[in-house]
This record gives sequence, structure tokens and C-alpha cells, in this order.
Amino acid sequence: MRLTQVLAASLCASGAVQAVAVNPLPAPTSITWGTSGPRAFNGRNLALNGAPNHVVSDAWDRAYSAITSLHWVPQATEAPIATYAVFPTGTAAKRRGTTTLNSITVQVADSKAPLQHGVDESYTINVPSTGQVITITANTTWGALHAFTTLQQLVISDNDGGLMIEQPVSISDAPMYPYRGIMIDTGRNFITLPKIYEQIDGMALSKLNVLHWHLDDSQSWPVQMASYPSMTKDAYSANEIYTTNNLKDVLNYATARGVRVIPEVDMPGHASSGWKQIDPSIVACADSWWSNDNWPLHTAVEPNPGQLEILNPKTYTAVQKVYSELSGIFTDNFFHVGGDELQTGCYNLSTITTEWFAANASRTYNDLLQHWVDNAVPIFANSSGNPNRQLMMWEDIAISTPHANTVPKNIILQTWNNGPTNIKTLTEAGYQVIVSSSDWFYLDCGFGGWVSNDPRYDVQVNPDAVDGNPNFNWGGNGGSWCAPYKTWQRIYDYDFASNLTSTEASRVLGVEAPLWSEQSDDTTISSKMWPRAAALAELSWSGNKGPNGKSRVTLLTQRILNFREYLVANGVAAAPLMPKYCLQHPHACDLYYDQGAVA
Amino acid sequence: MRLTQVLAASLCASGAVQAVAVNPLPAPTSITWGTSGPRAFNGRNLALNGAPNHVVSDAWDRAYSAITSLHWVPQATEAPIATYAVFPTGTAAKRRGTTTLNSITVQVADSKAPLQHGVDESYTINVPSTGQVITITANTTWGALHAFTTLQQLVISDNDGGLMIEQPVSISDAPMYPYRGIMIDTGRNFITLPKIYEQIDGMALSKLNVLHWHLDDSQSWPVQMASYPSMTKDAYSANEIYTTNNLKDVLNYATARGVRVIPEVDMPGHASSGWKQIDPSIVACADSWWSNDNWPLHTAVEPNPGQLEILNPKTYTAVQKVYSELSGIFTDNFFHVGGDELQTGCYNLSTITTEWFAANASRTYNDLLQHWVDNAVPIFANSSGNPNRQLMMWEDIAISTPHANTVPKNIILQTWNNGPTNIKTLTEAGYQVIVSSSDWFYLDCGFGGWVSNDPRYDVQVNPDAVDGNPNFNWGGNGGSWCAPYKTWQRIYDYDFASNLTSTEASRVLGVEAPLWSEQSDDTTISSKMWPRAAALAELSWSGNKGPNGKSRVTLLTQRILNFREYLVANGVAAAPLMPKYCLQHPHACDLYYDQGAVA
Repeated sequence: MRLTQVLAASLCASGAVQAVAVNPLPAPTSITWGTSGPRAFNGRNLALNGAPNHVVSDAWDRAYSAITSLHWVPQATEAPIATYAVFPTGTAAKRRGTTTLNSITVQVADSKAPLQHGVDESYTINVPSTGQVITITANTTWGALHAFTTLQQLVISDNDGGLMIEQPVSISDAPMYPYRGIMIDTGRNFITLPKIYEQIDGMALSKLNVLHWHLDDSQSWPVQMASYPSMTKDAYSANEIYTTNNLKDVLNYATARGVRVIPEVDMPGHASSGWKQIDPSIVACADSWWSNDNWPLHTAVEPNPGQLEILNPKTYTAVQKVYSELSGIFTDNFFHVGGDELQTGCYNLSTITTEWFAANASRTYNDLLQHWVDNAVPIFANSSGNPNRQLMMWEDIAISTPHANTVPKNIILQTWNNGPTNIKTLTEAGYQVIVSSSDWFYLDCGFGGWVSNDPRYDVQVNPDAVDGNPNFNWGGNGGSWCAPYKTWQRIYDYDFASNLTSTEASRVLGVEAPLWSEQSDDTTISSKMWPRAAALAELSWSGNKGPNGKSRVTLLTQRILNFREYLVANGVAAAPLMPKYCLQHPHACDLYYDQGAVA
Repeated sequence: MRLTQVLAASLCASGAVQAVAVNPLPAPTSITWGTSGPRAFNGRNLALNGAPNHVVSDAWDRAYSAITSLHWVPQATEAPIATYAVFPTGTAAKRRGTTTLNSITVQVADSKAPLQHGVDESYTINVPSTGQVITITANTTWGALHAFTTLQQLVISDNDGGLMIEQPVSISDAPMYPYRGIMIDTGRNFITLPKIYEQIDGMALSKLNVLHWHLDDSQSWPVQMASYPSMTKDAYSANEIYTTNNLKDVLNYATARGVRVIPEVDMPGHASSGWKQIDPSIVACADSWWSNDNWPLHTAVEPNPGQLEILNPKTYTAVQKVYSELSGIFTDNFFHVGGDELQTGCYNLSTITTEWFAANASRTYNDLLQHWVDNAVPIFANSSGNPNRQLMMWEDIAISTPHANTVPKNIILQTWNNGPTNIKTLTEAGYQVIVSSSDWFYLDCGFGGWVSNDPRYDVQVNPDAVDGNPNFNWGGNGGSWCAPYKTWQRIYDYDFASNLTSTEASRVLGVEAPLWSEQSDDTTISSKMWPRAAALAELSWSGNKGPNGKSRVTLLTQRILNFREYLVANGVAAAPLMPKYCLQHPHACDLYYDQGAVA
């Protein structure tokens, strides 16, 4: 059947009110529909209070362009499970007001508020029953942008060449958490600018506001550096380098869409490429065998090895220059300086370190990491050129083995291990926390192991004939340390703050889903990221519970199925979650008939 | 570094012989390199013996176009693990003969041999040290095409604007198995023609020769039918339909590239959409709740339910017309008619079936399936319009619960359960078998469950606080019945014929990797299919063992890493397997230093 027939059918099947009550994602905090039915829409005119605001007017241009070029037909509308009717065909029975909504009036209270952590992102939309004007209010530019991404999801095809919007509708909306992010990793594999833009497009549409950019890793250094041009000798090729202008282009593209960009330079672990071009003496164990096959000698959690020489003073000269240069390019008040997964074995190959331990038997690897913190953090503080700069680090720096003895409490810690337990530990200790618990939010999990020469796959029988143990190739993790793959329901179901006191909970700044890229590049980034990141977006924007405190994951189904189609229509290559049959037959693909099966 | 520098470096680093000994995939049965070094290549001229053969000349045009447009620089070359040298930069030190290879002479013994099961696919290539002619011989057109996909992988950039090929080299090659396939599923989600062509492009490059096209399933019927135009009312939309001309276009595209297309219409299970538009009385339980939540009442392995009414005579009228029409379009001698996963519960909703069982207490579901076989198989035999037609069915028809009592031995069975055990059972019983064991070859596994309203993801603690059992969200299958994801090493390591007698082994026609598409469509098909299908391609073309009988999976590493880049360069959106670092540093990302770790 034709898509336009689908809409007509939808209108016919469930009455005009249900018919175009489209499901914007994330669900707004408050949305109130009237019952007078859809009105024609032709809202090219944007009236903006106060001075010209190009960010707002450009954003409306984009939203309006999407609206008019797509003439969106909702691909999945909500309906009760009990009907089971086949998506029916029929004649359109649309109700329309006599006047067209053709103007958008936007009131931005403070159009100068910068896009930084904690900025007010609230907005309201009012679509009236009479008159030609849709009214939007927002305290900041960034709230107005969110209003547009809601509005563009509400305006749909009228099945007759025009556009319409259900009305009256009044929306009052604001996020639960100020930090709602995803992470890309351009150290393991390069990602081109168009694909980074594509992620930002998906973020804007789903109201995610932080792009954490893990710039480099031990495998490559893709960032062109004026201070040390030799670092990009460790880019994968001349075509796989980000120039300073490229970085600024990404920043501009993101800012225009209400997305902050937080850079990460991972130190002192996960550091080899780039750094060793500055001076080989500032990197330990760079040319060693990673030695997972002889665990006492292992130097890295994954190939290739390399960690900064914490005890070499030259290291800090390099760190200062690299940090200072990048700190001057990236405008966000947050800067991530890594701090994860230090491998002690690496330093067995470091003369300076082994001599330091030999000189004082009481010294531990925790002391070594403390040396890093004591020397590096002041450099970060003094070289940022940004008085508002806050540092982020992975939680390891404070609670892994090894960890620094004392980590300043003003460093924001990103937690990825042990789920709610670590969130509790860190917030109880007074740290502000970003939640990236790998058992819920790691988008790269479940694709098996990626290292080669791996005999664990050469197993023909399960369970093992000798010891009777089940083999990991049958229903096991298959070589992925964080298996299984995290489904959209898994992501959405995470109650990450439920075991916290209100004080502890107030220290949770938000959430972030990382996509580590050992097995990702341009060909897979969008389908691994989307639409799963949209489940995270709604979880952190308006939560996973309804007003009754019950899970609304089942109500997210049709919303995210429609949103996935909407992402694809907008050029974001999101993966399909189900057969399209499910999208066209609401709740026919539920596991339980009981719509309250998820408590 | 520039790509051209990489090649120069490679040439320099390991000597001219190693340098351009590129790694065609699948590895030829026999390839013998000389030591005189590369010669310039400009082989536009194709001399073809006998009559004009457009299939061969077109294939060379494609290969030549790829060669000249890509000026391929090998992205991963083989090298011993011990060196660990960083991919060095340096000056090219290439040795070149004084004459250019500028002609290809192709001798095809029988250019009329049709592309059908068992056709001779062997070929030889000879690149001489002197003269201007590369000589190819093949017994059939299809062997000549394979020669070209080898040759196009051998001709690479000379780092100076021209092309070159290592020489002398002599290749003698033929496949181990005549059936080397992948399966696409356009019933769960639609796949556009360009994306189907993209799969065929990847197949041709990797010498896979069978595209199994699971046309429909219970969820949708995307095939336009002259006999029953109403069937496509159950297509997902008017844009998601294959016309007869579309089908023929795919056949032509595939044939031109040496790829057979075997259609599947899944019957009597997995049948609802399309069929119910012909006559609702020929489909049982189509509008039922699938009832996985109340197992005694369940009617389907997945939503939506629907199976053909085996006892309704009208069913066979429809089956005859549908089969006859499609049989006249698809030219392959093989036709797949399904036969898998019959759900007995579905027929509880069928009056005709419950009455049949009530009339004779001795009747079983095996008898019901026998009724299907006894009535449907003669129709397939008499309506094909192809005297050489052979039927394929899933193994279920013969060995699942339920199964038919007697399945003709001339029906080829596709095995997907229980790995080597079922292969043994079926070949011992005398059946010819296609191996698709899900624990090795199912490319859709490991993406979690796709049904909604699933409380199994709303679990915050592991192990369970009450019973101490580990939860599937932590290292478990995460809701994917065939988890984990099958890695390229897992696929390649499958010794599927090792427990068979020589007679049994002779009944294994080949292998096929299915990609079921509940969670796939255009956005993901290529990255889920490739380059993993290339591991299957080599497994079935020249095997997973070296001449010494030892695994060569570790030697496949650099070959498949290079081939993945080559697929992407040729427009096939294959997923990356590792950080690019691994590709540039041979074996640095091995799990074991011992290169014989995989026995």
C-alpha cells in the first residue's frame, strides 16, 4: 500500500484524534492534545523576538526544510494492543480547520546564554485552534532549537500534497538531566566529517546535547597539531587526519544544533601513537608484544601497547603543549583527560619506572598514578585558557586497580563499571558523575572478539567433551568482553539513580553511551548508534517511567519505531529494530500480551 | 602517511618479492610466484578465443574498470609476526620489467556451459616475465569470470600513476564445493535492488556463486504476482514491491557475475502475508496472538502467525499458481520451497485440521506434514516448466518435530541445527545437504531480542538476588536465540565435514550463510554480510587448511583485512574487523604470539 494510504488508513482506523497524535521523541515532559483535529500548516514565517538570532533562524530553516521536503507520514502510531487489525486501507477522513497555521512566533528570553553545561533547555509550544500562529517560548536559544525538533516531528503530510498538524496542542518541556551524550572514538578507526555530522543530526533530532569525542588512542593520532606536526605521522593516512579547521567545523556544526563537543585526550594510559613521534622516551612499552597469551607479561588490554612515561619530566612538557593547543580549539567548559585502564605490566619495560620502584620499596602503582595526578592536573588547570574549565576523567583514576590516592573532587568522573554500585560509590564520595555503565550503555558490545589468531573459535563441539563446560560459542559471550549487545529496551530500562540518596542523585549530571570503534568506522557507526541512542535520549530527557511510576518502555515501542524511520528519512542510517510488520501493527510484536508486563 | 607511501614502504620494507605478493581472496588453490619482480600493467586489450562472449567481455570491462579506477594499493600485506616494525615510510624501490603487460588472452573451452549447479568454475592465469600478454584459460565462462576477480586483485598501483603486477605468477584454481552461497530475506524487511546488487558485487569478488533469496515470510509478500495481483496488498508499501522485471533484472545482474539465484517461497509454515489475500481460508491462525507468553497456546515462533492450511484443497490451487509463475521467472535448476518450523499450535485454530485429527485418533502432526509433502511435491514436479528442476527444503521437513514421515531423497536439504550432528544424520540417510549450521553461519545472530514489551531487559542486578542465577544481560545471550555474533574466525573455522565418511562427504554440496532480516534492511545488510561472507567464500573455495593440514585462519587475517578495504573501495559497505592499526601492522593484533596457536 502507498505510504499516503497508510496515513489515510490511520486517520480512518482510530479516529481523527488518535490519528495524527504523532509520537515525538523524546516524549515531552508535558503534552496536551485537544480534540478539534488537525489544521493545515504552512509555517514558513518565523517571527523572532529581539535581535536577529542566526542560530535560531537557521535551526528553523532546517526544521522547515525537513518538514516540507519529507511531508512526513507517521510510520508507527500508538494503538491499543487488543485491536490486532491489519493496517487497514480506506478513505481519508481528515478533519481540518479552515485557516492555515503559517507563522511561528518565537520568544527567547535570553538569546545570549552560551551552550554550556546546565544551560536552560526548556521550551513551550502552543498550537492554537484559531489564528495562524504557532507560539514557541524558550529561555535560551537552545530551548528554542529543541522546540523546533519537536515541532518538525508534529507536522506531517495531509495526504493531499499539503501539510497539517494536530491541534490544539500545548507542550511544556524540559530535560531531566543536563548532560545527555554519546561518545565517538576516532582513535581506533577514523570517522569522516560527514559521518560525524550525521551523528550530530541524530543527536539534535533526539535532543541529545553532548558529543564526547575520544580523539585518539594508542592505535592512531588523527589530530593535526601545530605544536607537534609530527604527531600525525601516526594517523592512518594523509586522508585520515582532522585539521584544526575540521575540528572547528565540527564545533560550529554541533553548536548550531545545540550539541556541545567535549574532547578527550586519553592519558596516561591508551597513549602511544602521536606521543611517540614527539619523543619516544615519553611513551613506555610502545613496541612491546601485548602479551595476552602470557598474562604476567601483558602490557596492554588490547593491541597496541603504550602509556605515557609518568616519571619522565619531558612527558609533562608534551602534555602541556598538546592540552593547551586543543584546549584553545574546543570551546566547551568540559575537557576529558582519560585516566582509564592503566596497565602496570607496561612499566616493567620502563627503566625510569622500575628504578623509581627499586629506590623505595614502599612505592605502589597507586603512588605512580598519584604522581600523574599531582603533575598533570595543575598543568590542565593552568594551560586551559578557560577559567571555567572542568576536567572529566574515567572513574578508574579514583577506584580501579591501580588508582590515584587522591583525586580532586572537582573532577567529574565517568563511570563504566559495576553499574549502580559504582555510581553509588562515586556520588557517596562526593564526585559528580556521568553514567556510562557498560552493562547498559556500551553500544559496541556483542560483536565477538576482534583480535586474530584466536583458537577459541576453532571449537567444533559443545559442551566440551572432556570437562563438560559450555563453550562461549554457544549462547556465550563469543569473545566480546561486554556481551551481549545492548538493545534499545535494555538501554531504556536502566534505573541508574534508584539506589541513591537525593544528595547523591543530585551529583549525577547525566548519561552517555559510548561507541568504541575497534569494529566501527563510517560503514557501521550510524547503524550501531541509532536508533539505540534515541532510547538513551528519552531516558535522560523525560525518563523511562510514566506519571504512575511504571515503566513506559512498551509505550516507547511505536515512538522509537517511527523515529527510526524518521532518522533514515533525515539521512541518519539508523538500523531497523523489527520487521516493518511490527511498526504497522502496534504491539503485535510484543512478547507479552499484558501491556504492563514491564513493571 | 599517504596511501602511496604505504605501498612504497611495503615494497621497500620486505623486498620486492614480498612487497606486491598481494593476497587475493579466496586464496587460489595454487599460486606460484616467481622472483623477478613487478611489471607494468596496461591490459585493456582482451583477446577472447572463439565467438564473442559478452558475459566474459563485460566481466573484463568491470574488472579493468575497477583496476584502473582504484589503482589499488594493498591495505594489508602478509608479514611475519616477529618484525613488529611500524609500517615504515621510505622511498619506493620497485623493480619493473621493461615491457608492459597490455593484453589478456582468454581461452574458454566451452563458452555455452550454463550457469547451473556443478558447472566447471576452474581457471588458470599466467603472468609471464616476458611479452605483453597475460593468459587465462577456463573450461567455461564462469571460470573466466573468476580469473578476472583474481586478476583484478593482483593488479595494483605502481605508486607513480601507473599500474603493475607481480610476475611471473601462475595460478591454477578451482573450488572445493560447487555451492557457495549467502541468503537474503526480503520477507521480514524489504531490501532495495541497489543493495541486492551490492551483495552480488561482493559475491562475485569473493567467488561466492549462489544467492538464496528468501522472498517472503509471514510478515510481508513483496513479489508482484500476475496470477494473484492481490498478494502485494501485503507488501509493506507500494515502494516495497519487486516487479517481475525487477526479479529478471536481479537474475541478469547476477548471471553476468557468475552468481546463481535460488528463490525460496517458504511453505507451509512462515506463510500468511500474500496468501491470505488470495483466500483467507488457505491460511491458519493468521490473526491470532502469537502467544509466546502462554506457551501451550503459542501459534508462531515469532510474530506474526500464519501457516498454510495443509488440508484445504484450495491451498494447493494457490500453491500451484504461485510456484508455477515464479518457477517460470527464476532460471536456476534449484528452487527452495521452505518446509521449516511448523508450529502445531497454529492448527488449533483451524477447524478443518482439528476435525481431521478428531476423525482418526491415530493421526499425528507428522501425518499432517506428510499430507503436505504428498500433495505439494507432485505439484512442484509438474508445474516447474523445467525438467532439470531440483527442490530444496530446510532440514526440518525430515528431522524436526514434527516432520514428514517420508521425504523423497532427491530433495536437497538445508541444515541449520545441531552442527555436524545433523549433517551426519542427513548425509547418512542419503540426502544431499547444504550446510548452514546456525552456530557457525547465521549472520543475524547476537543483536539481542527484537520483540517489544520484554521485561527481561528491566533487570538491574546480576546475579539474581533471590536464586543467584546469572542474568542473560550480563555475558549471556541477551535475548538472541543464536547468540553470540559469529565472527569471521568462527565462520572460517567450521570443519563441517570432518566426521563424515567419504560417501557422506560427497553428499555435502556446499555451504550457505543466511542473513535473516528481522533486524536488517538496506542500512545494515552490507555491514552484517561483509566481510564475514568472504570468510565463508574462502572456506568453501579453497578451504581453511594449508597443505600441511593445519588451520590457516591466522594467514587469512591480512588477506581478509585487505579484502574488506577492497570491498569498501568497490562500493560494498563491509564492516571493519579491527582497528586499522592491525591492518598496517601484520599480526600485531593476534591473541597468541605463536602463529600455530590455532591447530
